[in-house]
Amino acid sequence: MPSERTTQHSPLTAHQFGGIWPAMLTPLTESGEIAHEQIERLVELFVKQGLGGLYVLGSTGQWPMLRLDQRMAAAERIVKTAAGRIPVMVHVGAVVTDDGVALAQHAAKIGADAVSCVTPIYYAASPDVTFEHYRRIGAASELPLFIYHLSYVNQLTIGPREYAERILALPHIGGMKITDRDLYQFGLIHVHSQDRLQLFSGADELMCHAALSGAIGAIGTFYNVWGPVCQAARQKFVAGSFETGRRFMLTFQNVIGEVLQSGASWGFLRSAMRIKYGIEIGPPRPPLGMLEKPWKDAEVERLLAAVDETIQ
Amino acid sequence: MPSERTTQHSPLTAHQFGGIWPAMLTPLTESGEIAHEQIERLVELFVKQGLGGLYVLGSTGQWPMLRLDQRMAAAERIVKTAAGRIPVMVHVGAVVTDDGVALAQHAAKIGADAVSCVTPIYYAASPDVTFEHYRRIGAASELPLFIYHLSYVNQLTIGPREYAERILALPHIGGMKITDRDLYQFGLIHVHSQDRLQLFSGADELMCHAALSGAIGAIGTFYNVWGPVCQAARQKFVAGSFETGRRFMLTFQNVIGEVLQSGASWGFLRSAMRIKYGIEIGPPRPPLGMLEKPWKDAEVERLLAAVDETIQ
Amino acid sequence: MPSERTTQHSPLTAHQFGGIWPAMLTPLTESGEIAHEQIERLVELFVKQGLGGLYVLGSTGQWPMLRLDQRMAAAERIVKTAAGRIPVMVHVGAVVTDDGVALAQHAAKIGADAVSCVTPIYYAASPDVTFEHYRRIGAASELPLFIYHLSYVNQLTIGPREYAERILALPHIGGMKITDRDLYQFGLIHVHSQDRLQLFSGADELMCHAALSGAIGAIGTFYNVWGPVCQAARQKFVAGSFETGRRFMLTFQNVIGEVLQSGASWGFLRSAMRIKYGIEIGPPRPPLGMLEKPWKDAEVERLLAAVDETIQ
Amino acid sequence: MPSERTTQHSPLTAHQFGGIWPAMLTPLTESGEIAHEQIERLVELFVKQGLGGLYVLGSTGQWPMLRLDQRMAAAERIVKTAAGRIPVMVHVGAVVTDDGVALAQHAAKIGADAVSCVTPIYYAASPDVTFEHYRRIGAASELPLFIYHLSYVNQLTIGPREYAERILALPHIGGMKITDRDLYQFGLIHVHSQDRLQLFSGADELMCHAALSGAIGAIGTFYNVWGPVCQAARQKFVAGSFETGRRFMLTFQNVIGEVLQSGASWGFLRSAMRIKYGIEIGPPRPPLGMLEKPWKDAEVERLLAAVDETIQ
Repeated sequence: MPSERTTQHSPLTAHQFGGIWPAMLTPLTESGEIAHEQIERLVELFVKQGLGGLYVLGSTGQWPMLRLDQRMAAAERIVKTAAGRIPVMVHVGAVVTDDGVALAQHAAKIGADAVSCVTPIYYAASPDVTFEHYRRIGAASELPLFIYHLSYVNQLTIGPREYAERILALPHIGGMKITDRDLYQFGLIHVHSQDRLQLFSGADELMCHAALSGAIGAIGTFYNVWGPVCQAARQKFVAGSFETGRRFMLTFQNVIGEVLQSGASWGFLRSAMRIKYGIEIGPPRPPLGMLEKPWKDAEVERLLAAVDETIQ
Repeated sequence: MPSERTTQHSPLTAHQFGGIWPAMLTPLTESGEIAHEQIERLVELFVKQGLGGLYVLGSTGQWPMLRLDQRMAAAERIVKTAAGRIPVMVHVGAVVTDDGVALAQHAAKIGADAVSCVTPIYYAASPDVTFEHYRRIGAASELPLFIYHLSYVNQLTIGPREYAERILALPHIGGMKITDRDLYQFGLIHVHSQDRLQLFSGADELMCHAALSGAIGAIGTFYNVWGPVCQAARQKFVAGSFETGRRFMLTFQNVIGEVLQSGASWGFLRSAMRIKYGIEIGPPRPPLGMLEKPWKDAEVERLLAAVDETIQ
Repeated sequence: MPSERTTQHSPLTAHQFGGIWPAMLTPLTESGEIAHEQIERLVELFVKQGLGGLYVLGSTGQWPMLRLDQRMAAAERIVKTAAGRIPVMVHVGAVVTDDGVALAQHAAKIGADAVSCVTPIYYAASPDVTFEHYRRIGAASELPLFIYHLSYVNQLTIGPREYAERILALPHIGGMKITDRDLYQFGLIHVHSQDRLQLFSGADELMCHAALSGAIGAIGTFYNVWGPVCQAARQKFVAGSFETGRRFMLTFQNVIGEVLQSGASWGFLRSAMRIKYGIEIGPPRPPLGMLEKPWKDAEVERLLAAVDETIQ
Repeated sequence: MPSERTTQHSPLTAHQFGGIWPAMLTPLTESGEIAHEQIERLVELFVKQGLGGLYVLGSTGQWPMLRLDQRMAAAERIVKTAAGRIPVMVHVGAVVTDDGVALAQHAAKIGADAVSCVTPIYYAASPDVTFEHYRRIGAASELPLFIYHLSYVNQLTIGPREYAERILALPHIGGMKITDRDLYQFGLIHVHSQDRLQLFSGADELMCHAALSGAIGAIGTFYNVWGPVCQAARQKFVAGSFETGRRFMLTFQNVIGEVLQSGASWGFLRSAMRIKYGIEIGPPRPPLGMLEKPWKDAEVERLLAAVDETIQ
């Protein structure tokens, strides 16, 4: 039962997370409200697939496009549906620190397993301010905190040793989701934190690569679509099948490249979830998804198969 | 009367704006709500100072930290207080396009003189998506639209000629607020738009410089504090006193540098407005202003005087 | 006589340079050797035009494409031709510090008026290494040293105050050539050096703008072609004709934009010098100038006239 | 015999290179001349260690600090010493295209196995100019050409598909040395070239990671010091020992971090080669190595052991 687990939490030893976690899509209705039924179906799917956990209401989950009450309602439904069968980490990062605090308190109350917090956005923030923002949100609950390092938004302006030390000093720290292709910095954060941070790779396109730099798992968008095959590929790779890892990653990179270069990533995700799983994700909130050309089902099916057939 | 003016609007010839516009601070209460009385006092101050206009609810006005209802309430109070004595441009940019549309419609309804829209934030947006976001928000009202180009958030990935052409094709386009130190790109946008865009400089530290690249005015944070002296400096410079412009800009750059390097810019603004004008801006919403060391009044007064005394 | 001037050198007070300096093209033969006769004609041209000085063997002068003996021979011919009628600053920056030292010693021996040194290239260099490289080259002669700050190659990783202080501590320091569009940093360097550095703007496209940030002159490529008109425009602007400055800069930016976007800048320079002055610059050393489409004379003439006719 | 191999060359099938190649240091005398005897000892060392090949006169080999005659003399001595026992790839990239052509012709004449060419430096070069520079140098000999992609100098401004296609169209193309931490772009280049490019990783700190993106080997500085252990680690990793790869890479990243952050990398390399192999590399040409604090032997030995002891 999640609530028991959270009370017994010892941040650096308990909750040994790992494996493949979808950065869960948030199904929405046409009018932009939370589609609760589809959320339940999505959670059931991931439970059935035996994935490592759920990372909810992050960038893929459209947190910046949702009101606070929508974020809380979605989180609650997810945790309730998961019912302890799969760990749930709720992204509670926010533009306003106090909103992050409220979301973290709510996540604890509903029995989530962990919270995650992205770096401050829009306004430039010094390292000091960034860490104070994290600190307040981390202190708001007893849940383990996972910092969401997003290189696209926030360049690292301090060295990896100081960065790791300051991360480790945060309250209830559990680890990080590092969305950055620089796996040298990733490895240095791992080394400097001396195994006391659970590091997830946030760059799907480097899922296996990141394991060499100390990642214990991966959190990302494309695991909504290809969770099981990614989980199998990562396991085989870690268990010694380099060739599986290599072949899989090259195919995966190629398909990710096709999706991103299409300029229609949201449409791909929506079609893929409908075709493969019969789950309706709904339209993203514009400007997300705007002007996207519709995918032909056959094209989506070709990409779905290309990845799935890599692992027998 | 503002509403009459907006109906008669002819986007490229009417509304010849210009001069110094404060990117108006949004006074807040300790609990983060709109401080209506202080807003009124601030508007009266700027009217009395004879500034060129008010740019409200932009980055300095903390738009990302405010709820939609707060933004609308603040805009309404400002327009009502201005009462046609000073033009008001309402920033309506938003994370979600539809929110921008609603804000633009509201701005028209309350009688604002123009709307402005920042580039999409957080998620990477292609030029096509960026312009579609602008287009929908521009089409939402009859008010002239001023694009808020913020180089910090959105690098120009298309050349200045195409950029100018696409800006000009937007509905009700009035001009731009260009917050970018690159005054070569600024000048090219001006040249390629053949005088059909009213360009404001958004980089206070290059207020006079930008006039050489075609800026018709300047919109910025520090004009809350030093509007009249900046207006005088710019006028003297444009009227032929190069030495006034040079001396003023070097002092202004130096003082801006002191404020920015203090790591306590929000505190400076708050102290300066209290000391100089007796207006209470209130605390910014964290993470803004977090961990700032308090300014000593004497330090603030020294900087206030340093700039004000540049122009006799 | 140059040699007398250099012996009497007092770095921060003597040699009050200023005005418009061409970053002089180095005329070459078809086989890539120094074209001495054309060099003489070029120097005579600039003397006759009454420009502020000559900046020779910089980036426009193709220093990286020339052997040390070529650089020395060209410098010698230039200084000899100038014969004290126009100051000559020799760029002595080099990949290898010792080459810079040898070039600086040579420049002093031949009677140049100043030396300039670009930042280390190709290999990343810390601020300490960068300043040690400058120091050795500055110490190699008694000539005033002008640091060539090239933002394209070397981002400023220290703040402008420290930067100015470290520049000021260099031996025989005279000033800087700052090739950077960021005129806020430019102004802060000026302020922090308290008038003890002679700052030249290296961004032709911001020639007049830079005067507002403390530039005492401008060094650049396009002054080979348009030296007199640029000198006139800058003088009128500084003397109080803002409108001349504005009109000139917008035209100049537009024409510079056309040349740069043509992908045939070297060809433009060569044609322009031939058409306007009858001086043959010769081909640049590839990869410079490679694949450039030839300019039609009429196109070159159109651009030449566009700038020249701005000032009556 | 090298000369026979080059005549029989079929660029995409012959010369199946791979494994660990040191980016060979160029031993110099105190006065900056080529230290031929130490070069011979270095080549003998690498032959004895059974490394995959030698990449000579690249960035680690100080090509920009050497005269053409020095580069030719060093290349000749290396090829002669190698005597077909280990393949030699000569970096012939140069500031001036014609110098690259001359170096490539010389490399062919002396019997080198391949040439490599870095991107144009110092002056910004368009993709077209960059590829024309490569083309001329590739066409200068019959040797397979390996493009040296150096992200530090040249950002990729075209997509990976077009990039791969244009690389494949170069004369005698053999593959690439990609010095870039972005292993997603690396993988896409591999995929888009459909196995027709032999890709070496140039980022030592991601040596094993790169194998997942299609690297067939690694070329880098630190293999001068740790060639055999890196070769063993890579082989074990590729053969199925993920844990060996992971443990090795984390240690290797940490040690590389210590060396780079010391600000004394050249001194480390020199000490390490002296202590471990008794080979004197000599001082690098300033500004390289300038101001470096000397390493204590014990510190060097500690780092040497840390990496070497990772693999038993």
